[in-house]
Amino acid sequence: MAAFYAGQKSFRLEEVVPVAPGPGEVQIDVAYCGVCGTDMHVFHGDMDARVTTHRIIGHEMSGVIAAVGAGVEHIRTGQRVVVRPLDHCGDCPACRAGHSHICHNLKFLGLDSNGAFQQKWTVPAHTVHVLPQNLDLKLAAMVEPLAVACHDVRRGRIAAGEIALVIGGGPIGMLIALVAAHAGANAIVAEINENRLAIARKLELETINPKDGAIGPAIMARTDGRGADVVFEVSGSQAGVEAMTAAAAARGRIVMVAINNKRPPVDLFQFFWRELEMLGARVYEPEDYNRAIELLESGAVDVAPLITDIRGLDEIEQAFTGLEGNSNAMKTLIQVGAGT
Amino acid sequence: MAAFYAGQKSFRLEEVVPVAPGPGEVQIDVAYCGVCGTDMHVFHGDMDARVTTHRIIGHEMSGVIAAVGAGVEHIRTGQRVVVRPLDHCGDCPACRAGHSHICHNLKFLGLDSNGAFQQKWTVPAHTVHVLPQNLDLKLAAMVEPLAVACHDVRRGRIAAGEIALVIGGGPIGMLIALVAAHAGANAIVAEINENRLAIARKLELETINPKDGAIGPAIMARTDGRGADVVFEVSGSQAGVEAMTAAAAARGRIVMVAINNKRPPVDLFQFFWRELEMLGARVYEPEDYNRAIELLESGAVDVAPLITDIRGLDEIEQAFTGLEGNSNAMKTLIQVGAGT
Repeated sequence: MAAFYAGQKSFRLEEVVPVAPGPGEVQIDVAYCGVCGTDMHVFHGDMDARVTTHRIIGHEMSGVIAAVGAGVEHIRTGQRVVVRPLDHCGDCPACRAGHSHICHNLKFLGLDSNGAFQQKWTVPAHTVHVLPQNLDLKLAAMVEPLAVACHDVRRGRIAAGEIALVIGGGPIGMLIALVAAHAGANAIVAEINENRLAIARKLELETINPKDGAIGPAIMARTDGRGADVVFEVSGSQAGVEAMTAAAAARGRIVMVAINNKRPPVDLFQFFWRELEMLGARVYEPEDYNRAIELLESGAVDVAPLITDIRGLDEIEQAFTGLEGNSNAMKTLIQVGAGT
Repeated sequence: MAAFYAGQKSFRLEEVVPVAPGPGEVQIDVAYCGVCGTDMHVFHGDMDARVTTHRIIGHEMSGVIAAVGAGVEHIRTGQRVVVRPLDHCGDCPACRAGHSHICHNLKFLGLDSNGAFQQKWTVPAHTVHVLPQNLDLKLAAMVEPLAVACHDVRRGRIAAGEIALVIGGGPIGMLIALVAAHAGANAIVAEINENRLAIARKLELETINPKDGAIGPAIMARTDGRGADVVFEVSGSQAGVEAMTAAAAARGRIVMVAINNKRPPVDLFQFFWRELEMLGARVYEPEDYNRAIELLESGAVDVAPLITDIRGLDEIEQAFTGLEGNSNAMKTLIQVGAGT
């Protein structure tokens, strides 16, 4: 069974013949697959040109190896796994410079090819990370977004004792704050939704509501005029872009996590005046996956409170519809297969 | 004799009683002082609120120690010197973090207090760098802008073999390109003025004229689609802000040298997509001065072609007027004292 995005906010469930794993591939019994913000963009029709309207999407998954193709070593049937859904060309300037995760010709599994909202998913073996066998597959479905957060925190070069401001308290913002806090930072989540703020507080994160006053002055007041050492701009809002420069310390780092499809006005003067630094951060590298798995296995980061709904594959369209404009929800998982 | 900026594009020459050096101060016989872009902003009246209209400006200077105040060691009368015109508070978050050159309360000599367009200038001894005694004082007046370039290149972490695109071929852009080239980079100057391009070519720099086509595609074509490893945005133009993201390689660094008083639209998507990095760069640190002096002493960087005019102090107003909108000119020095 597979859920095909079929255009115009709809999915179509179809029986499909599983793709047998070819050489260098593995076939996975998908257990859970989370709904990503990008999947919501697909659902809204914003990415039809890239994705087409007959595509199995989904990439925040966990599962169990069902079959292994020729030449695949080190991966065995029955192992619990997650997929790092990036397929790079190996030959562009970014790949040659060692940055294959931002390959010029990057194919994203679940967007540019079929993804994990299907019961048996066949992928290149090089995309697989084997999980500790005791890791809950619901939590494991959070490895992908947690790896995003690990990558963002690594790009921001967070050090213990630093102040990390996260602008935007959606799932990625919350995970960034958790990873930053675990690294020893004082993590502050700026978010306007009170339910999300309540979740942040439950996760023992500091919070700030921009409705109570502009973020920049509030952070300066909290830090005796120093500002945040690292600012993660995750909101993708103009207010976020304004706050990121206003709240940063001298020589502060800004990690640009949000996807800005417009070109917002940016206070470049502050970059000059306070020697700010901005670092773009996109997806993840293998070490970010390894780190995310470690953090889940050890229980160092508790992502369970972020899973606010679990639906069956047959309810996928309702699950997506239910997420529309629902900023109370955090992460919805689709239970694709047997699960555990 | 001193030249006071007197408001409304005018200078007034006045005899002044030299300030005797107090404890921890030195008095300098100023030889030459260059006209900086910031001085032009003062001349145009844009900085009257900060500078007032009775201020001796000027900071790109060279001179000879005339007198030494109590408690000053390691500096002797007769030594050739330049001044790093920054006076920091020592107590703000930036100073405490070791970034005193971007002190929250930074005083810039020649703007916030009197500067070097006067024959005898008294300054804190900690601002002085002693020159090699054989260094020409005209060239030494270029230490300050060359130190800016050294700082910018250091912020950009230029490595040998990298491609450095400098957007804007004024004096600072040209010096950045020279320092980057000396560090082993392939430096390309983007500039629309043909006279400036001719100077760049004379300095053995590669050039590109945006009038012949957009910078981004031109750089991509020259680099087989890789882009520039480091982009220095020195133009302060919207076209420059657009080109900086378009021309940068995956994981490329953008050094923000220009002072943007407006908030230009910035293609933040490219920061995310190609994990670009932007680093603000302002003034210099002591090591940048030391490096600039070394580069001049050794002859590694030839700044002489950038000195396009030398005028007497009595001609200062004409010198400034002559620079207005004159993009053929590069650096005008004012000969303040005896010189050599």
